[in-house]
Amino acid sequence: MSNSTETPDSGRFLKVAERAGELRDVKAIVFDTFGTVVDWRSSLIEQFEAFGRRRALPADWTGLVDAWRGGYEASKDKVRTGAVPWTNLDDLHRAALDGLIEAFDIEGLTEADRDWLNRGWHRLTAWPDAVEGLTRLRRAFVIGPLSNGNVALLVNMAKHAGLTWDMIFSAELFQCYKPHPDTYLGVSRLLGLESGEVMLAAAHNYDLSAAKKLGLRTAFVPRPQEYGPGQVADLEAEGDWDLVVRDLVDLAERLGA
Amino acid sequence: MSNSTETPDSGRFLKVAERAGELRDVKAIVFDTFGTVVDWRSSLIEQFEAFGRRRALPADWTGLVDAWRGGYEASKDKVRTGAVPWTNLDDLHRAALDGLIEAFDIEGLTEADRDWLNRGWHRLTAWPDAVEGLTRLRRAFVIGPLSNGNVALLVNMAKHAGLTWDMIFSAELFQCYKPHPDTYLGVSRLLGLESGEVMLAAAHNYDLSAAKKLGLRTAFVPRPQEYGPGQVADLEAEGDWDLVVRDLVDLAERLGA
Repeated sequence: MSNSTETPDSGRFLKVAERAGELRDVKAIVFDTFGTVVDWRSSLIEQFEAFGRRRALPADWTGLVDAWRGGYEASKDKVRTGAVPWTNLDDLHRAALDGLIEAFDIEGLTEADRDWLNRGWHRLTAWPDAVEGLTRLRRAFVIGPLSNGNVALLVNMAKHAGLTWDMIFSAELFQCYKPHPDTYLGVSRLLGLESGEVMLAAAHNYDLSAAKKLGLRTAFVPRPQEYGPGQVADLEAEGDWDLVVRDLVDLAERLGA
Repeated sequence: MSNSTETPDSGRFLKVAERAGELRDVKAIVFDTFGTVVDWRSSLIEQFEAFGRRRALPADWTGLVDAWRGGYEASKDKVRTGAVPWTNLDDLHRAALDGLIEAFDIEGLTEADRDWLNRGWHRLTAWPDAVEGLTRLRRAFVIGPLSNGNVALLVNMAKHAGLTWDMIFSAELFQCYKPHPDTYLGVSRLLGLESGEVMLAAAHNYDLSAAKKLGLRTAFVPRPQEYGPGQVADLEAEGDWDLVVRDLVDLAERLGA
């Protein structure tokens, strides 16, 4: 031990080891879902382009998907500020989709088509490391999504993507969207845990920042392709998170699961 | 078909077949948990008798367990009638347990002992058919408990008993206990389903009766040993339930899962 801090490398190792010690109290890990666990952008583009070919409806489906997600914060802000009463994500998505269908000049869609497109969010696929990482983590921890998605969306997505959760923590249960404190604290309350016994794993620094302020443990999972080739935000950790991992398999490794 | 109703047996078969047709709309099945999925009485008695031997604390542990469950309705009634504000099941259990420890003259228990005993409900084991039945049903349906147990209790119990749910529907999410309508209707609301697309499977006729009035489908699962050898209630179906099955494997069979 006497020379264990002589080189930068061993110093870094010690820091990680100390942190791993602090993390012994973690009993539950909740996961941001869109972007962190599932690849929403590629999944939606693939589904919609196949739909367009099937129905001979050529359109800028990629543009529509990007614009849809681009309006996400503004949609949620209407709920966050109280400008509209609680509205779940399926309904926020649907209102935005109807506008985008018009803006992108897509014609001839039935009500059933619009519903199918909107439920594209229920059919997202996982990043390649997610199923293995979560399966391993579930053996040692209580795991669940902590997502702005509504319960039906998250239940259907889990079945479609092959994810197995212990509990689904949806913003819908708390009637407010992340980063409202009630979402993070709702997890520890429902699990009967202290906030320091819960870790949030997320690809978004704002989410980890809100969780850390409330005493949760934090793990950053970079997803530099989430927004496609032009992604500019969340390319790396921007806070003093407890862990910075490569992916969810690496998170399992680091936590000994 | 002309002679298909000639005998009582074929008539009964037809009735079941018609019902199976009606049941094609079922997309989610929720399960009463204490008694229907897990054998709370044997599990608790076994845990507590082992504890008593380990700690040299002989006591009428069976009597305590029966009295504990016997006070269950009265405890919940205090919440149902509004006499006390919302209190989750762990806390109701604990208040009752403290009284019973005194009534049964059990001395020398620490706070940690009492907490361990109370969390006996988190460590219940499943009836022998439950894991196989639920595993099969989960392939074809969304499944979850619909239980008066709190979220932490149900999450921990599922891990302990090896149950895998898609979502946990706890009375705690709705802040009211079964048979309040908000519990049954909360399931269909959160899943984005009609109430007729949800089935309740339960060993208790009162529970099925409340669900049926709200339009849910119903399956009676007899558990004539739930309360031990002296059980007098719920020995058989007492209503016109959609299905009466032997156990959860039989439920999977009957629903083609």
